[in-house]
Amino acid sequence: MKKICVVIGSRANYSSIRSVLKSISLHSNLKLQLIVGASALLRRYGSVIDLIKKDGFNINRKVNMIIEGESPTTMAQSTGVGLLNIPPLFEDLEPDIVLTVGDRFETMATAISAAYMNIPLAHTMGGEVSGTIDESIRHAITKFAHIHFPSSNQAYDRIVRMGEQKENVHLVGCPRIDIVKEIIEEEPYTKISNRIFDQGVGEKIDIDNKFLLVSQHPVTTEYGHGKEQILNTLNAVKKIGFPAIVLWPNADAGTEDLAKGIRNWRERGKSSKIHFFKNLPMEIYIQLMKKTLCLVGNSSSGIREGAFIGTPTVNIGTRQAGRERGENVLDTDYSENDIINAIKSQIDHGPFQSEKIYGDGFSGEKIAKILSSKKVSIQKKITY
Amino acid sequence: MKKICVVIGSRANYSSIRSVLKSISLHSNLKLQLIVGASALLRRYGSVIDLIKKDGFNINRKVNMIIEGESPTTMAQSTGVGLLNIPPLFEDLEPDIVLTVGDRFETMATAISAAYMNIPLAHTMGGEVSGTIDESIRHAITKFAHIHFPSSNQAYDRIVRMGEQKENVHLVGCPRIDIVKEIIEEEPYTKISNRIFDQGVGEKIDIDNKFLLVSQHPVTTEYGHGKEQILNTLNAVKKIGFPAIVLWPNADAGTEDLAKGIRNWRERGKSSKIHFFKNLPMEIYIQLMKKTLCLVGNSSSGIREGAFIGTPTVNIGTRQAGRERGENVLDTDYSENDIINAIKSQIDHGPFQSEKIYGDGFSGEKIAKILSSKKVSIQKKITY
Amino acid sequence: MKKICVVIGSRANYSSIRSVLKSISLHSNLKLQLIVGASALLRRYGSVIDLIKKDGFNINRKVNMIIEGESPTTMAQSTGVGLLNIPPLFEDLEPDIVLTVGDRFETMATAISAAYMNIPLAHTMGGEVSGTIDESIRHAITKFAHIHFPSSNQAYDRIVRMGEQKENVHLVGCPRIDIVKEIIEEEPYTKISNRIFDQGVGEKIDIDNKFLLVSQHPVTTEYGHGKEQILNTLNAVKKIGFPAIVLWPNADAGTEDLAKGIRNWRERGKSSKIHFFKNLPMEIYIQLMKKTLCLVGNSSSGIREGAFIGTPTVNIGTRQAGRERGENVLDTDYSENDIINAIKSQIDHGPFQSEKIYGDGFSGEKIAKILSSKKVSIQKKITY
Amino acid sequence: MKKICVVIGSRANYSSIRSVLKSISLHSNLKLQLIVGASALLRRYGSVIDLIKKDGFNINRKVNMIIEGESPTTMAQSTGVGLLNIPPLFEDLEPDIVLTVGDRFETMATAISAAYMNIPLAHTMGGEVSGTIDESIRHAITKFAHIHFPSSNQAYDRIVRMGEQKENVHLVGCPRIDIVKEIIEEEPYTKISNRIFDQGVGEKIDIDNKFLLVSQHPVTTEYGHGKEQILNTLNAVKKIGFPAIVLWPNADAGTEDLAKGIRNWRERGKSSKIHFFKNLPMEIYIQLMKKTLCLVGNSSSGIREGAFIGTPTVNIGTRQAGRERGENVLDTDYSENDIINAIKSQIDHGPFQSEKIYGDGFSGEKIAKILSSKKVSIQKKITY
Repeated sequence: MKKICVVIGSRANYSSIRSVLKSISLHSNLKLQLIVGASALLRRYGSVIDLIKKDGFNINRKVNMIIEGESPTTMAQSTGVGLLNIPPLFEDLEPDIVLTVGDRFETMATAISAAYMNIPLAHTMGGEVSGTIDESIRHAITKFAHIHFPSSNQAYDRIVRMGEQKENVHLVGCPRIDIVKEIIEEEPYTKISNRIFDQGVGEKIDIDNKFLLVSQHPVTTEYGHGKEQILNTLNAVKKIGFPAIVLWPNADAGTEDLAKGIRNWRERGKSSKIHFFKNLPMEIYIQLMKKTLCLVGNSSSGIREGAFIGTPTVNIGTRQAGRERGENVLDTDYSENDIINAIKSQIDHGPFQSEKIYGDGFSGEKIAKILSSKKVSIQKKITY
Repeated sequence: MKKICVVIGSRANYSSIRSVLKSISLHSNLKLQLIVGASALLRRYGSVIDLIKKDGFNINRKVNMIIEGESPTTMAQSTGVGLLNIPPLFEDLEPDIVLTVGDRFETMATAISAAYMNIPLAHTMGGEVSGTIDESIRHAITKFAHIHFPSSNQAYDRIVRMGEQKENVHLVGCPRIDIVKEIIEEEPYTKISNRIFDQGVGEKIDIDNKFLLVSQHPVTTEYGHGKEQILNTLNAVKKIGFPAIVLWPNADAGTEDLAKGIRNWRERGKSSKIHFFKNLPMEIYIQLMKKTLCLVGNSSSGIREGAFIGTPTVNIGTRQAGRERGENVLDTDYSENDIINAIKSQIDHGPFQSEKIYGDGFSGEKIAKILSSKKVSIQKKITY
Repeated sequence: MKKICVVIGSRANYSSIRSVLKSISLHSNLKLQLIVGASALLRRYGSVIDLIKKDGFNINRKVNMIIEGESPTTMAQSTGVGLLNIPPLFEDLEPDIVLTVGDRFETMATAISAAYMNIPLAHTMGGEVSGTIDESIRHAITKFAHIHFPSSNQAYDRIVRMGEQKENVHLVGCPRIDIVKEIIEEEPYTKISNRIFDQGVGEKIDIDNKFLLVSQHPVTTEYGHGKEQILNTLNAVKKIGFPAIVLWPNADAGTEDLAKGIRNWRERGKSSKIHFFKNLPMEIYIQLMKKTLCLVGNSSSGIREGAFIGTPTVNIGTRQAGRERGENVLDTDYSENDIINAIKSQIDHGPFQSEKIYGDGFSGEKIAKILSSKKVSIQKKITY
Repeated sequence: MKKICVVIGSRANYSSIRSVLKSISLHSNLKLQLIVGASALLRRYGSVIDLIKKDGFNINRKVNMIIEGESPTTMAQSTGVGLLNIPPLFEDLEPDIVLTVGDRFETMATAISAAYMNIPLAHTMGGEVSGTIDESIRHAITKFAHIHFPSSNQAYDRIVRMGEQKENVHLVGCPRIDIVKEIIEEEPYTKISNRIFDQGVGEKIDIDNKFLLVSQHPVTTEYGHGKEQILNTLNAVKKIGFPAIVLWPNADAGTEDLAKGIRNWRERGKSSKIHFFKNLPMEIYIQLMKKTLCLVGNSSSGIREGAFIGTPTVNIGTRQAGRERGENVLDTDYSENDIINAIKSQIDHGPFQSEKIYGDGFSGEKIAKILSSKKVSIQKKITY
């Protein structure tokens, strides 16, 4: 049995790897080891660990690693806490392969730990460009990883051009799309009840009628501008006039700044017909993406899941710069007016055709299969 | 005044950047900030910090970061200690640019700290290949760095191919060569007195006669084989029959293993005509490289400084795999016989012509000049 | 100039030492060094650091040290982060004496750092009993401290009985009382405007009429019971019927639990005539203590400042067990009925006479004077 | 089954608790959990972990925690690394009681971790006085511990006077004496072969003839004086004229200083008739204590085991100040002459009568029995 150790550090991490966990669990030659840490342990990000348990996965170890502060300094220090605490877990669990997801500080800590400890490292979502510090982290992890699972053609191409051996780069699509497919196809989205609005803050929205969906996160390289950025978006949404569902920003340097903007705005009484959620279960979120007039903000979901679902999306600012996108995405800068115009244009267009840019819904199975048979040399060689 | 903060973590780090420190100090628009940490603080690696002070540099902060154990696990954890302690120093010193050297765990901690804190990162010695975990670290740092100072043509080329903007990659040569040049040209090497043998352990060697020089370090990806590897080398040297000077291995995962091999060998009475040094001042070492019949082991010095000096070099095993090399280097595997044959062949050849592969002796000045005028965007963009 | 380094980690820490900082700053032989860290850096605890700056103190260094989670595990780990980061600051600042406050994890980290580094340690608020893990920490710090500044007779006595040299134990009173005195005497409490209710959540309270004041914190040794405890208190207050001002719980293991209780309660629509504050400036809080019918909860303020002010106080549960108290305090357990009866009884009594149990309002000056002349042996000796 | 988790951090820790481990293992109601860390993992302190395995104990977890530097700063920081890494182990192992030994930084980290995590803490060797920072740590740990196992009458008395409940203080003697008894009684000391001198450095000593035994460690509060102190001792021993066995100093702030003194002295050719050992198995050491003319230095063994064995002991300086001692100990200061006179006087006297000051040889069994039946309240109460 080949032991595959996956480190999950956030809600986004989890939904990006859940279908892989399932496929590993079901594979006869693989044994899943699960380490859950960082914001996935925290109640203020919705206790993702409870969700993981509820989904039936056994958690082998936990790792606290976030130093409070949400500043650039504490993000770097949090990586340090991870690096102090993850290596002993690997020493104890003795995985054959470590599988890490994406581009966050817990991903970095995981990658360095595995690399120093001579454990082959597999990485999903490498090779993408996004326009923040996350991009540097993502590419740095590519330089540590032994097995690459890019989710798009362009990502595959970039990994190979960065000097990775082609035989170790596997274009499998994004495992999140597996879940999106399942939700869209198997669960009739009529299922969302209005009881979801018992959670969160603000008025109930009638989701069988027209509404907007907003998801905007801090941009770490634009630290200090987050409050102004979110206010432009909220004001634009307000002026469009349809009811809106607003998602709370992710934990990152600058989150507190956006959160303050949202709170002030709310306290100035501007939030009628707006409902705020700290977190939404992915099944609900995907269904909202399917039903919304337009998704507004800088979440990668508009670009990735949006391509598959066909959600009209207004993508604001630099956070997703360079990410491969389909017809459904319209880009704007941070100006309130431009945001308004973009939303109007997307509403006029309506839903788009599904595109398979980020996967066809079978990534998990493909990854598990490759992991089960893959042999790698621990000593990496650049191709040039 | 532009503040350039340099983090120095080891003896090798220091001699690789010393001429740059000097040039920064002398530059009218630059202010040098110095953080000294990791093994550079430790007596058992020769208290490099004292050397730095003696050279007239002011040390702004110190950072303890090595967790004892010299295992893969503790190397990863040491990176973590660095990441907990370096960010507050940057917050306090507010550098305009952080300059980091090479490929060690303190380099990694420095790079991640700067990257998360949105401080432009400059990096020397990127783009080289070497065949250990250090190579992954080096390339990962390239993906974090905003300004690159490769030391060779091939290194320059690799950095560009990895997707870095050409305008940010500056082929300047290796700053160590600046010092080598100075030593070779200005200080007559007749200066080494036999009193150097008051240090270290073993018989005095007459360095005006024929002798071998040995410098062999652990290979982190071959953890557990170090003892056997060093014994083959020592036995080969012994059989060649000339007196030899043996350098103690660097601090790394596996050092203790080699050290044990050396100690056992010594205790078995095999070390007549051999002198062991824990550390040698670079001025002495370079002069020994100029005088020795042949340098044996896996130190990068044979390849880098060796090219400039023309030292006949036998390079053993994988540690320097892929590193650009001149005529002076003959590669072998770990077998005792092959090592013997290679040494004989190099002794027969004698000194080689100087080659400028790793620099012409003016790298420090070039780097300081570029740093003083360089403007970078904190948001990196991959070129493809 | 004797350098006195004070480490401040929370809002409570700061108000407990502010008058001392002022006296040290004004003293001709003392130089104040200030390190601010832990929750004092965090926005969600009201950015105490900004308050400190506003009060005119220069901050020498900052230290991030809280690992998110608010669980017993992360509290211990946060102490660890403190111990990794505080020693280099002491090495850099070279204080003659370190002064630490109270009994929190940042206090523990400060004490151990100073002790190992052979820096004389002074400690305020030692010798008190309180009935939580804080008590063990407080006494442990006493065993590290070289100079003790207890605030009450009983505390003085306990420190001496624990084996500390009498000559190093100075009964000075609690420096918080210095500020209380100033607020009560110099600032007419008519000054509080109703604009304070622009902050916080809930209805405005008319503080010129009858109202209750509630301040209840988690009890770390009763981890898991916090929600039920706070609900009993809130229900009792509700039944008494007067408007109430409720303070948000301190950061500690279990805070999230109480917070959840409060939020649920609020969402169930029970909070009419209640106003919630995350934080209140001490000047406001003390004036509210002066005006309230009764202070309810388990805050030490009812016992300490309450004695000086004469505030009728209902103290609930074990958190303040064993703390020396005046006539103004009535103790109850966690039952709703007992809380109701106690509040009624205190309202009937009305304001109490001032008692000087915890100081006379001149502690800061006394402490500065002692620090300026004190000579201590770094080698402690137990008296038996 | 009650789970008893023991954290072992050094060779001295291990031999002080080994008989307890054995008794816990054999007890039908107890389950032993073992965490091994700090210097017990390091080869340069003799890989104590291998010894523990060889003795048949199962090791549940390892914890790296020593930051290199051996300075006061790194000792404090090492405590921090321990506090970051031990709490997750406790969370994972869920012990019913944590048992900690003595007064080192790993002991402190263990104690704070258990205390914050509401796990009852048992402590051996509390209440003793010794005259270094270790004493402050020891007493601080007493203030965290719920169950105390002092080894002498005076220690018992001090713990009670510090305010601990008598019912939780159990005078059991020192578990090291259990092993001493076993070695002295069961293993004829004729068993030591001269082959022990294959280890270490220097001439072979004939231990069936007269010889001295030297064991001197750094005094943390006299940091910087170690080299001079050890040289006085070595010179005194040299002048007495008998052959001598010298033990290498313990890992502590200042070790490197003593080590340097020893190395210089040795290199100046002064070490004829002297044999140096880095470590000695306890069975050998105890037998040497039984056979030596006199034990010289500042090791606690002369006072503790020495009382039981009757070894003539010269105790130098402050390190053991205040420790309860028997007839066998003669104290001196650091002057060479006084040391010489004291050694002569002890040699004249010869072996002393056995005294049971530190136990009768059955401590392990007593401790296991108490742990199996003990019920403690997690909330400690000082007795006054």
